[in-house]
Amino acid sequence: MKISTLGEFGLISELMGDAPPHSPKVIRGVGDDAAVLRQTSGMVLLATCDAQIEGVHFSLKLSRPEQIGRRAAAVNLSDIAAMGGTPTFALASIGLPAGTDSEMIKEIYQGLRRGLALGGAELVGGNTAELRDQMMIDITLLGEVKEDQILCRDGAKVGDLICTTGSLGRSSAGLLASQRTDLGCDPEMVAPLVDRHLVPQPRLKEGRVLATHPGVTSCIDLSDGLLGDARHIAEMSRVSLAIEAERLPISPSTRIVAQAARADLDALVLQGGEDFELLFTVAPNSAKELLDRLNGPDFAGATTIGRVTAGRPEVIVTRKGQPLTLNQKGYEHFVGSSDRQ
Amino acid sequence: MKISTLGEFGLISELMGDAPPHSPKVIRGVGDDAAVLRQTSGMVLLATCDAQIEGVHFSLKLSRPEQIGRRAAAVNLSDIAAMGGTPTFALASIGLPAGTDSEMIKEIYQGLRRGLALGGAELVGGNTAELRDQMMIDITLLGEVKEDQILCRDGAKVGDLICTTGSLGRSSAGLLASQRTDLGCDPEMVAPLVDRHLVPQPRLKEGRVLATHPGVTSCIDLSDGLLGDARHIAEMSRVSLAIEAERLPISPSTRIVAQAARADLDALVLQGGEDFELLFTVAPNSAKELLDRLNGPDFAGATTIGRVTAGRPEVIVTRKGQPLTLNQKGYEHFVGSSDRQ
Repeated sequence: MKISTLGEFGLISELMGDAPPHSPKVIRGVGDDAAVLRQTSGMVLLATCDAQIEGVHFSLKLSRPEQIGRRAAAVNLSDIAAMGGTPTFALASIGLPAGTDSEMIKEIYQGLRRGLALGGAELVGGNTAELRDQMMIDITLLGEVKEDQILCRDGAKVGDLICTTGSLGRSSAGLLASQRTDLGCDPEMVAPLVDRHLVPQPRLKEGRVLATHPGVTSCIDLSDGLLGDARHIAEMSRVSLAIEAERLPISPSTRIVAQAARADLDALVLQGGEDFELLFTVAPNSAKELLDRLNGPDFAGATTIGRVTAGRPEVIVTRKGQPLTLNQKGYEHFVGSSDRQ
Repeated sequence: MKISTLGEFGLISELMGDAPPHSPKVIRGVGDDAAVLRQTSGMVLLATCDAQIEGVHFSLKLSRPEQIGRRAAAVNLSDIAAMGGTPTFALASIGLPAGTDSEMIKEIYQGLRRGLALGGAELVGGNTAELRDQMMIDITLLGEVKEDQILCRDGAKVGDLICTTGSLGRSSAGLLASQRTDLGCDPEMVAPLVDRHLVPQPRLKEGRVLATHPGVTSCIDLSDGLLGDARHIAEMSRVSLAIEAERLPISPSTRIVAQAARADLDALVLQGGEDFELLFTVAPNSAKELLDRLNGPDFAGATTIGRVTAGRPEVIVTRKGQPLTLNQKGYEHFVGSSDRQ
């Protein structure tokens, strides 16, 4: 049914129809002027918001509705992960053309709830409104963390090791593979990359390990690309980040897709956004134990990729000691073409 | 400067350039993966979000940018007011066409900050992204309240009085007056109505009085129109609301504009949305003291307009004992024409 027939309140009631019951932390959920929520005492509150926009962050041609919802959850969960926090509550603001099919919105919400639940968060409120010709899903996610465990961008110290969880360039390789059907790559090899692009994997468990392990000095999630996000740490910590290209973790499938597409692997790995791995810095004497733990079962793995050095706030990437010259920017909205997908 | 030239990070840095310093409650504001916020211990958390969309909630022809920002703040502050809470922190998610002038966005943000500050809230985070051809401002507002002071929609009891703050129909009359230059009304009389439409006045002080006064049983803010919002109380409290049309508080200027425009005054007052007054129910033996207080200096005034009765969940409006027949719906997105303004 079109939502122009169902109406705003009909739509809200459809969306809430299959919502699971709230946890006892939710004193009031959807249905009053504001949600009423219980915080864990002694914790500070984390709050972040990120909008997913049709034609910029997702395409109705490439993603199933359920994946769009999970993506909207994942990119916000990743921000709470990067602070070392535990997700708690989410609000969803959705903008839709009046001709949108209500079944699709229900599936987006199911994906959103499922994605949030994977991170331990629940949907407690939101609003719907009409946009002319684009769909937009804006999620505000709350979380909590002990004050002495917060992971910030500004704590990197000269001499620290620079590390990343997981492997890099997978999301960009997945985007390439989904756009180019002429690559001739094995579909079974490509599928996990495309999945990773459509539904990022927030590194919540890894973030909690970083928050509780001694010696971790800074952390950021890789949303705009390694170079751009590393630059945020460099600028906020007033240090230089020296990254060695040959140490960057790159999966074999990412290499194969890049080669098949004749894409620049360095650009893919250094500038391709949306890997949603955690980039962090750690004191050298704490690093081994931490990396061992993150490379153990149930974790995404972690790799040392460089070192924090004195100098002006910038990111220097070398290969065999020679500087790589690359545009130091990550993805940026409004600049140049807007069709990221 | 166009934001396509400035870029996302340039825009953010412009927007943050004239931000006042944060209060000590803000451990981390804009500039990390999430804001880190201190809650008052012993309080529960309130969370609400509301999006303002160009062509639906505001028009760049009628509103100055600063007023658009204040409006976005006000509609969210009103939701916290209706819960009896105190606003604390806000996140702003803004969607913009790439050709938008950055000076206008700065003015919107100045208005937003000014509006939030009037309610004691501060902007602690947000995000910007590109929309094709519409501007959208989605605000998430947090607040806090003691658990035993929360005002909900579901507590109205048979025998309670139904009351409203302020007067009704002003926003609709202001909208009419701003659209119709042929009415021949005194511009000085009309200006406050138009102002009220463009920048609603959240009833925060009044909400705090309701939250702390004994005998107040339910509360909602009038965003979708008296009939629609009263129906929410009726349905959630499982009671009938009997409203007497002759008791509705209507300002002389609202009457004059309605008459000049040959508009149906009943429809204007009962179905016109966005008055953002508080509709509440109160036990009869607590009402006099409460209304005296709200009619004292520094408050918006309050009027008894009916009584809660047993019966099926509906709103019945009478004039001189005879039922008025009106469509029981308030404003609803997606239904019929979308150009509210």
